[in-house]
Amino acid sequence: MQALLAPQSIAVIGASRNPDTLGTIILQNCISAGFTGRLIPVNPKYAGEQILGYTCEATITQETAVDMAVIVVPSTYVEQIVSECIEAQVGSVIIISAGFAEVGNQQLQERIAKKLRAANIPLLGPNCLGIIAPAARLNASFADGSPLPGGIAFASQSGAFCTALLDWALAERIGFSHFVSLGNAAGVTETELLQAWDNDPAVHAMVFYLETIHQVNAWKNSLQKTHKPIIVLQPGASTAARQASRSHTGSLAPNARITEEFYRSTGVVQVRTMRQMQSLLQLLSSNPTPKSSSESGITVVTNAGGIGVMTADILAEYTLPLAPLSEETRTLLREILPPAASVLNPIDIIGDAGKERYEATLRCLITRPEVEEILLLMSPQKNTQIVETCTMIAALQTTTKKPIRCVLTGGEKIQPGREVLEEHQVAHFPTPSEAIEALSLLRRRHKDPLPERPDTMPKHPRLATPGLQNQQITSALCAAYGIFTPPSKTCTTLKEALHFTQQYAPIVLKIDAPAAVHKTELHGVRLHLSTREEVSTAWESLQQNITEQQLEGARLLAQQMIPEDSIAVIAGIKRDPHFGPVMVVGAGGIYAELIADTALRILPTSAISTMLEGTKVGRILQGERGQHYAISALLELLERLQTLALCHPELREIDLNPVLITAEAAYAVDVKFLV
Amino acid sequence: MQALLAPQSIAVIGASRNPDTLGTIILQNCISAGFTGRLIPVNPKYAGEQILGYTCEATITQETAVDMAVIVVPSTYVEQIVSECIEAQVGSVIIISAGFAEVGNQQLQERIAKKLRAANIPLLGPNCLGIIAPAARLNASFADGSPLPGGIAFASQSGAFCTALLDWALAERIGFSHFVSLGNAAGVTETELLQAWDNDPAVHAMVFYLETIHQVNAWKNSLQKTHKPIIVLQPGASTAARQASRSHTGSLAPNARITEEFYRSTGVVQVRTMRQMQSLLQLLSSNPTPKSSSESGITVVTNAGGIGVMTADILAEYTLPLAPLSEETRTLLREILPPAASVLNPIDIIGDAGKERYEATLRCLITRPEVEEILLLMSPQKNTQIVETCTMIAALQTTTKKPIRCVLTGGEKIQPGREVLEEHQVAHFPTPSEAIEALSLLRRRHKDPLPERPDTMPKHPRLATPGLQNQQITSALCAAYGIFTPPSKTCTTLKEALHFTQQYAPIVLKIDAPAAVHKTELHGVRLHLSTREEVSTAWESLQQNITEQQLEGARLLAQQMIPEDSIAVIAGIKRDPHFGPVMVVGAGGIYAELIADTALRILPTSAISTMLEGTKVGRILQGERGQHYAISALLELLERLQTLALCHPELREIDLNPVLITAEAAYAVDVKFLV
Repeated sequence: MQALLAPQSIAVIGASRNPDTLGTIILQNCISAGFTGRLIPVNPKYAGEQILGYTCEATITQETAVDMAVIVVPSTYVEQIVSECIEAQVGSVIIISAGFAEVGNQQLQERIAKKLRAANIPLLGPNCLGIIAPAARLNASFADGSPLPGGIAFASQSGAFCTALLDWALAERIGFSHFVSLGNAAGVTETELLQAWDNDPAVHAMVFYLETIHQVNAWKNSLQKTHKPIIVLQPGASTAARQASRSHTGSLAPNARITEEFYRSTGVVQVRTMRQMQSLLQLLSSNPTPKSSSESGITVVTNAGGIGVMTADILAEYTLPLAPLSEETRTLLREILPPAASVLNPIDIIGDAGKERYEATLRCLITRPEVEEILLLMSPQKNTQIVETCTMIAALQTTTKKPIRCVLTGGEKIQPGREVLEEHQVAHFPTPSEAIEALSLLRRRHKDPLPERPDTMPKHPRLATPGLQNQQITSALCAAYGIFTPPSKTCTTLKEALHFTQQYAPIVLKIDAPAAVHKTELHGVRLHLSTREEVSTAWESLQQNITEQQLEGARLLAQQMIPEDSIAVIAGIKRDPHFGPVMVVGAGGIYAELIADTALRILPTSAISTMLEGTKVGRILQGERGQHYAISALLELLERLQTLALCHPELREIDLNPVLITAEAAYAVDVKFLV
Repeated sequence: MQALLAPQSIAVIGASRNPDTLGTIILQNCISAGFTGRLIPVNPKYAGEQILGYTCEATITQETAVDMAVIVVPSTYVEQIVSECIEAQVGSVIIISAGFAEVGNQQLQERIAKKLRAANIPLLGPNCLGIIAPAARLNASFADGSPLPGGIAFASQSGAFCTALLDWALAERIGFSHFVSLGNAAGVTETELLQAWDNDPAVHAMVFYLETIHQVNAWKNSLQKTHKPIIVLQPGASTAARQASRSHTGSLAPNARITEEFYRSTGVVQVRTMRQMQSLLQLLSSNPTPKSSSESGITVVTNAGGIGVMTADILAEYTLPLAPLSEETRTLLREILPPAASVLNPIDIIGDAGKERYEATLRCLITRPEVEEILLLMSPQKNTQIVETCTMIAALQTTTKKPIRCVLTGGEKIQPGREVLEEHQVAHFPTPSEAIEALSLLRRRHKDPLPERPDTMPKHPRLATPGLQNQQITSALCAAYGIFTPPSKTCTTLKEALHFTQQYAPIVLKIDAPAAVHKTELHGVRLHLSTREEVSTAWESLQQNITEQQLEGARLLAQQMIPEDSIAVIAGIKRDPHFGPVMVVGAGGIYAELIADTALRILPTSAISTMLEGTKVGRILQGERGQHYAISALLELLERLQTLALCHPELREIDLNPVLITAEAAYAVDVKFLV
């Protein structure tokens, strides 16, 4: 990878004397970037001639010690050139040329990638813009311009996204350590780059634009290992977007919620829009770099009261706290500020604040223990000293570890202030929304601990019969893994049901039939049966239902009734084609599908105990409505469900609906296993 | 108001020879704006001298036919000056000076406002920046610069917000018809401006930044009457923001959800952030102006596939539809576009698209019936002809009524394109997020029809006893207004309960006690009682509860049990100090408070029938889960609840919890009236 990320010599295969060809543009970019190593244009047509001051070679085969070969020839010639590169033992290959998998030429691409893999030569592309590494004075790309040097590594599967982001970053003076266009990613993928950048001390954050994940497990492992902030923008969350993506790269977007859980559990900041990404880049490229999973309050300073109010609104919307200012701090502020100012947070230093009032306020705040992060708002008013204040902020920031993030609202008048802040790497935003969105995204970052090796010794033989498993197997499987179900019995006669009632009253009678998926909807359940009379009546009416609706193979199941004041949840396992087994748990009952109050975990996971955090049903179980439930019994049941799912990969789906939780226990009342 | 919005003569009272004083700045702004009427500096200190080329007068009293007096003297002199203005019969007064209600000088402010009101002279301010009307060449403000002329009228209660927005608007070349700083709004408020602007054909949209509403009813009536798009930014939605607002303007923000309902029902686009407001201004100042309540699909054209996918994502997030392209349209596009392009929507015309490909695509699309609104994405790539393409778009837009909204991602390279679009009033945005957010906000705009005069002839005498009403009054009131409750009886003996059971089994027995607010939590309810034995057991256990918990005055209530498979909703009336009676309806049951699935209406309303649209419980009632419920019976009940609430203003709170809806009827099972 070193040969790709920091080459000492570059051959541009396909450079020509025509300055408008991509090959020549790339050679020119190499020169303009101030590359200090060897540059070799390669083109049999111009062999021996000078191209941009470098002698052109006929082929690469004669060359030795070439770290990087950039191939910019029509796709039909690429395979031959690649063979020559292998022969010449180049250190890395970039294929700029298009005309591969993106137009259906999957086989050619795979053949080339395989050859290079066999030769142990990293391949970037094909169908990419190339690579830029400003600190290494490397610009082996046909991008128009090169970003400033900085600590953010960026890789994109979309060339167009690269160019748009680059143009924006140049205007905002955001610096990068690397800027990589992955193209079709037939060789080097996001995973190899992440691994290389994780070991590079010059990289302090990584940003990826992905349309597909190439190797989910390797990607997951690498994400788990790194401690650097990672931002991923992976479009395709909605159905419509999925369609657009299919036509664009031929990749199917995985289920949005599972993707979200994947990134949450690996501590990645997943962004959904270009705007969010830009705001985060602003924040990550500033000093001091922001902390993750911070819960510290934010202190807002403003020269416009209304914009302060609005900022408090937006902070509340994102559930970011305002730091409560101590009485002492407020007294200190009152001494500095005019009487009309407000020393609550947001601190309104009022419209006529000049540089000195801003400075006095900031100098006071950074000494206060409750002030950990400052959001400074400035709008261009009569007495606002925009450039002076921004210069003061930049200087002050170098003296404190407490970050000062700035929101400079306005247009032309405020612009010089923005430029001062950019020059000194102080984060600034055009309105409070962008700042708060970015802070919120970064603060929510939190990585689940690595799961322990789960016990996959099955406690029950593998299931052989495909389809929905019957009551007997279901019960046996639940028993083997310690999933608690209420006492129940399949009854063939009313007598059996009455006998069961004597032992377990009150009971529930329900139809157990393969076709009866939604029992409630076919009126196949009778609750609260205690007396002989009640059981008999229910028995007859259910039997009649079976006859009327011609439910083949249907039988009646008697089950002990779980107390009324229990809480219903649903829990289950699905298998995702990308991410493997996924556990879902959420509110049960008739609102279940509508309120979509569910939590997910991709298995194996060490984070079942936190699964209910943030769900509504979790809050109810924890006693928000005055009554406590056996939440630990539910979590125990979910742990066992995980073991069961991992031990039985033949189970395509598991459905526990409902699980009823009383004050003492959690019962899986209705269980379905699908092989 | 004409004298304020389009004066022919202006006196600036407090102008001086010092160019840095506010009075002189205002006079200078009047001159710079090219004011064509008479300008009169007034200041006894400089009487007879020239100020900026105009002869200074000693006092206003000698002047006649002055349309506007701008007062810029210390607050202690303002009252005297105002008296002189009244004497001189000026047409309008602007008090720029601060030092009134905002620093506690409420009385002085009120005295001045009262005098002017008596003299029928409109007053703008005090504590404001002034007024700008570019088309009338009026800039009677101390703002730094004047916006371009345009069709948007803007008024703000925050001067700082004015200056920030003005600076932004100048940079983006957004034009305004009026730009008004309301200051403390002691005279002219948002309502008078709205009324004046509604009658002004030059105004086609109005934008307000408000921290408080001065007269809710007048404001509501004016909003109801106008058909022009209205945007309101009113910070203070959250508790934290409420605190900030209190310290800022001394006004209490009303409950956020009620404010939201207020603006929804009056067809106002309520924005929450400066960013949303800026995006909407971009859209409203463009040609063609966007339609409200449109449901037409959006057609996306992009030269960057990935950004197209992201756009589809964001559209889905905002539930804006992508227009489905007909087979015919796709065939036409295929003829125009290279094979690698995608003719699904988003239409990906791929990265090497120049002006001609954009033009061919747009020319094709605007002729297609299913294409109603185009969102054009452009990112700066190798062959992108930014200026040429934008010039083409601007020209094409003049030939079609179908709007073309542009998203130009990038920075410096794309900037010249933005400038072309600004010059020709074509809306453009920096990323898809801003465009879609603005379109979504404007499309959701929909005004409820004006409520008919409700029947406020009470069908039941006014209630005199304060506090929670007893069972007898409650039942009588429900009966009088046709609110259906299940048969029930307060029983003092078990015998009575058994008798009731014979008639209505199965029944419910519950504790009816003033202290028993949450019956479920004190185990005060027994369901499913049919047999003698069941009723006796329940009776004893409830009586024991009453004794143990010392519930004074508690009695037992027997009630017919509503079938199990009914749906529970809660409905009620609260009285808001700002907006009056508010009806709330939403999902009942244990999740009610957590899922917050509620809808609001401010009474009187004509829009009860649409109340359940968008709620989850509404979807269940409409049969989303396969079972239908008497939704019309619920709506009927809500109509009757409205009548009851309007007839009985002495009722501070009404609580129907739960209302149970079966397939046939809606029963208010538990009703509370609070006087």
